[in-house]
Amino acid sequence: MPQAPYAELSPSPRLLLGPGPSNVHPRVLRALGKPLLGYLDPEFLAILDEIGAMLRAVYGLDGGLALPISGTGGAGMEAALANLLEPGDTAVIGVNGFFGERLALIAARQGASVVTVNAEWGRVLDPEAFRESLRRQDRVKLVAVVHAETSTGVLQPLRELAAIAHEREALLLVDAVTSLGGSPVSMNETGIDFAYSATQKCLGAPPGLSPIALSERALEALAQRRQPPATWYLDLALLRQYWEGPNRVYHHTPPVPLLYALHEALRLVLEEGLEARFARHQRHGRALRAGLEALGLRLLVPESYCTPQLTAVLVPEGLDEAALRGALREEHNIEIGGGLGQLRGRVWRIGLMGESSTAANVLVLLAALEALLPRFGFEVPHGAGVSAASRELGRR
Amino acid sequence: MPQAPYAELSPSPRLLLGPGPSNVHPRVLRALGKPLLGYLDPEFLAILDEIGAMLRAVYGLDGGLALPISGTGGAGMEAALANLLEPGDTAVIGVNGFFGERLALIAARQGASVVTVNAEWGRVLDPEAFRESLRRQDRVKLVAVVHAETSTGVLQPLRELAAIAHEREALLLVDAVTSLGGSPVSMNETGIDFAYSATQKCLGAPPGLSPIALSERALEALAQRRQPPATWYLDLALLRQYWEGPNRVYHHTPPVPLLYALHEALRLVLEEGLEARFARHQRHGRALRAGLEALGLRLLVPESYCTPQLTAVLVPEGLDEAALRGALREEHNIEIGGGLGQLRGRVWRIGLMGESSTAANVLVLLAALEALLPRFGFEVPHGAGVSAASRELGRR
Repeated sequence: MPQAPYAELSPSPRLLLGPGPSNVHPRVLRALGKPLLGYLDPEFLAILDEIGAMLRAVYGLDGGLALPISGTGGAGMEAALANLLEPGDTAVIGVNGFFGERLALIAARQGASVVTVNAEWGRVLDPEAFRESLRRQDRVKLVAVVHAETSTGVLQPLRELAAIAHEREALLLVDAVTSLGGSPVSMNETGIDFAYSATQKCLGAPPGLSPIALSERALEALAQRRQPPATWYLDLALLRQYWEGPNRVYHHTPPVPLLYALHEALRLVLEEGLEARFARHQRHGRALRAGLEALGLRLLVPESYCTPQLTAVLVPEGLDEAALRGALREEHNIEIGGGLGQLRGRVWRIGLMGESSTAANVLVLLAALEALLPRFGFEVPHGAGVSAASRELGRR
Repeated sequence: MPQAPYAELSPSPRLLLGPGPSNVHPRVLRALGKPLLGYLDPEFLAILDEIGAMLRAVYGLDGGLALPISGTGGAGMEAALANLLEPGDTAVIGVNGFFGERLALIAARQGASVVTVNAEWGRVLDPEAFRESLRRQDRVKLVAVVHAETSTGVLQPLRELAAIAHEREALLLVDAVTSLGGSPVSMNETGIDFAYSATQKCLGAPPGLSPIALSERALEALAQRRQPPATWYLDLALLRQYWEGPNRVYHHTPPVPLLYALHEALRLVLEEGLEARFARHQRHGRALRAGLEALGLRLLVPESYCTPQLTAVLVPEGLDEAALRGALREEHNIEIGGGLGQLRGRVWRIGLMGESSTAANVLVLLAALEALLPRFGFEVPHGAGVSAASRELGRR
């Protein structure tokens, strides 16, 4: 046993401009500390109903089912694949980054036969390659793809993929972890059957929950399973009996404070309005990219399909990228992310998500980079980043 | 989209005397709202190390591994079974309540062959029955049992079970969801190989995390798996690469506020001291039982093996138990629990866990029951409950 317990926590108030968590609104932090309710308290059940309704609005979903999984985005990914796939099913999965690879890995653990459609990391997936792949398979249960690839910042167009999947009576599963609340997902309109997200990105809540949403078609597929999934914790047939309907059958004790925080974060999303929120993310993403390029840095993803909320910057040749991130953190109290998988050491990932997507944050980051880069052997034109970003911010 | 977003939450400040969540200390509520850190921030990693060290102290574990799973107690149960069992393994599982049944159900979903050792709900499991069962099996990988059965309030002795399991080279898995922090678990001393718990019971934190702990022997068993588990989210080989060692390989973004809260709750546990905390739970459990019996109510579990932190009370014949719980909640702002599974409608479950285990809570609950029971057709002797409890509280 420790002789003296450790000290009370006093975390530094970081500016979180990495791939998540992002900063949260003070109203959301306050919601976390509200008095706990029991999981069958009528007051609590009413809160769950409101969260479900707000999630439907944010997902653009009529009918179907929307609820937050009691785990992080990875739990949502696993919930999707474990519930939609059974051993022997075939899944066609797009892989153009770290999270596409993870989709393929988790699908394989379900005993599914996995076929990948690949693209270079940092490039979009070609719908024609999916059409080809589906043509070569006898029967495909699922097409899965990442909407905003958090490892690269590519925004994948979805509408054509949905049509291609549905032509072959496959379901479309979409990873909306980094897109939901920052870019349009619009499930019904786009034709998405199952989407999962995470709370700590563009929704502006702390990490710990994974909001998922299912179309009626996905629910029908679940009802036709031959056997329950290997996972009990993420078994949607059981979760649904608690989340919906009059019986509220106990499954697990949900993480009450995180649900309070999500409720408040969703209120903020809907108060701002989805269109205004998307435009805000676009505006600040554009300003950041303009500033970075004015500093002489190069971006991984072409303008035509980059996400506004996550920008991958190529690390200049020979620069110690981890040391620069450390200096940003220690001297400027700013966090940005490093690369994942094959991009480890090769990119920085800058997030402007939810509350973190502000004009002030764009400017303060560019100023800090301008101050630090020369020390790491990369000369930058004086004032160029901030002034290019300001110009972009002034435009409408 | 909702025309007007819903109102800000204003949850009633309930006295939580059900099976969990229990009330938390104001210091824990405050910890929830501290500034978020990124999952690779050195400040955050230091917090994780402290949590691991404090969990080891509370579990009575040297060596091995202790970490909180990013999910609720049910996720901890699934993590244990999914990591310890492979298809074709045999598990001998004690079933004398709802959570024993759940252990058997989840073990079966791993493709394991499950043998149950049964006892009546509300009675302890007989170690001899385990010895018999193990003798009849060729090779048993795992013996699993619930320490404090949350559906009944039975406290299962473990030491003899550990010896029986180890004689046959099986591992002992223990559900410590309701016991950890309220009754001694003492993993090394008792001979437990894998235990999981939940934060919202006797540890005094909000729900959402499941602290698990593994002996060296359990870690060796994991290292000898023939294939990875079906679950990626709960795969301990992957989680360990983030939680331990120098590389901190990204797996998922942990639920930062819940970890802050757990850190503060563990500090409170160690400040109080484990022995003092167990004695507090004992004292208030005894007082509650004395008070309930003085009111003329009967308890499900004999005194010799009841848990102090959860007491199941038999509902008097013909009484509308759900209506009484509703009146307690609406008129007295107190939550107690109903029965689960075959005890649904037949018992109330009263929790005195963590911060909820106070003398004042015992007395206020007994007074409220005394006020309500006659209205539900059950006459009680005036003042008897409170005075019997007070007598018990005064004794030392």
